[in-house]
Amino acid sequence: MPVEIRKGEQLDDLQNGYYIIQAEGAFRFGMDAVLLSGFARVKPGERVLDMGTGTGIIPILLSAKTKGRSFVGLEIQARSADMAERSVAYNHLEDRIQIVTGDIKEAAAIFAPASFDVVVSNPPYMTGQHGLVNPEEAKAIARHEILCTLEDVVSQAAKVLTPRGRFYMVHRPFRLAEIMKVLMQNNLEPKRMQLVHPFVDREPNIVLIEACKNGNPRITVEKPLIVYEEPGVYTKDVLNFYGMGGE
Amino acid sequence: MPVEIRKGEQLDDLQNGYYIIQAEGAFRFGMDAVLLSGFARVKPGERVLDMGTGTGIIPILLSAKTKGRSFVGLEIQARSADMAERSVAYNHLEDRIQIVTGDIKEAAAIFAPASFDVVVSNPPYMTGQHGLVNPEEAKAIARHEILCTLEDVVSQAAKVLTPRGRFYMVHRPFRLAEIMKVLMQNNLEPKRMQLVHPFVDREPNIVLIEACKNGNPRITVEKPLIVYEEPGVYTKDVLNFYGMGGE
Repeated sequence: MPVEIRKGEQLDDLQNGYYIIQAEGAFRFGMDAVLLSGFARVKPGERVLDMGTGTGIIPILLSAKTKGRSFVGLEIQARSADMAERSVAYNHLEDRIQIVTGDIKEAAAIFAPASFDVVVSNPPYMTGQHGLVNPEEAKAIARHEILCTLEDVVSQAAKVLTPRGRFYMVHRPFRLAEIMKVLMQNNLEPKRMQLVHPFVDREPNIVLIEACKNGNPRITVEKPLIVYEEPGVYTKDVLNFYGMGGE
Repeated sequence: MPVEIRKGEQLDDLQNGYYIIQAEGAFRFGMDAVLLSGFARVKPGERVLDMGTGTGIIPILLSAKTKGRSFVGLEIQARSADMAERSVAYNHLEDRIQIVTGDIKEAAAIFAPASFDVVVSNPPYMTGQHGLVNPEEAKAIARHEILCTLEDVVSQAAKVLTPRGRFYMVHRPFRLAEIMKVLMQNNLEPKRMQLVHPFVDREPNIVLIEACKNGNPRITVEKPLIVYEEPGVYTKDVLNFYGMGGE
């Protein structure tokens, strides 16, 4: 049975053999999800949860890149979850990817304790609802901490991870100190960090972080990832490391 | 009365009009102290404490660079403190710089609460005494947490700072998560961070951090500071920003 692409939706080529269904012109996956998928490490046979999967971009990219056994995408917004499910079907990935409609704040109730080796998340970055015209809009929910906070994401991740499980997150550098604090309060020890700079002489605008449950305190700060060689031209590092297109 | 340069000591030109007395061939100030002096901001009239001043390099550099009112260097090792005092005298800086021989762990007993607008520190980086041949050696005490820990430095700094005082520290990136945690536990909110990379394509080996007492949670991660253009050749950024030589 063919997968339906509905009115107002489009099918985009991920340049890695897979496709994704997204809303036309609305909130679509961005560089952040691509960078997180490139940064995260999934070993053969591991079980992976993506908290706040949106249209399922991260499970689809990770299933292509890794030999992980299973990928679960948790998404609270019904319309996004529905598109994610159809993308999984379109790519014939039903045996590896499952989309669950549900609330990040209830992840530890939805899933059994210690049921994932890896949790990834591209959570809302902005605190509060300042300046938001419509806090019920899909884009607002994905970008602002309206339905869940950083603390919610991290504490739920810690509960569903195995005792030595790994948590990968993409976020904004201006919240770095808080991120470190919340991770450590939840026994997720920051172990690896990479700052992403749009250009070599600019401040970083993205931070990628890996934390290990019950890990020892020692973090590796990697060399910076520079996105653009010049405006519109990706650096070799981005193309080589991620090599899968993006926004 | 001329300042005595003793046997086994030498007088080094700091290239900014000032000189420093250091032990020949032994533990001498390095790039870290120079970078911290460049990173720290001292406003006209402010009172500054350097915790673990060694031979006094940071107060001497900051007194040259800023219009701070007074600089106190606290040092537990008598021989270093003695060299620092003679360097202050040699440079005729007695009216701005005072060297105090004492223990960082007792800073809050030695100095009155809220008596400094700024505290700076280039503390020991390494935890424990693993692999140390002689833990009483001056170099070992400066590099390893033998006489004081990160927690000691930060908690004592918090006590002697004014309610909106600023703390500047140079450290190693592998301890970044712990640094953030200890700062926040002591109400010193990380506000500004710069990673220092030996070369543009290498991992950072130094982190510079500014924290504000009772500050709001929002940190600025600055563009990376690259030290070398090529082996032995400093970048323009380092020369321009610090412009004062170094090791």
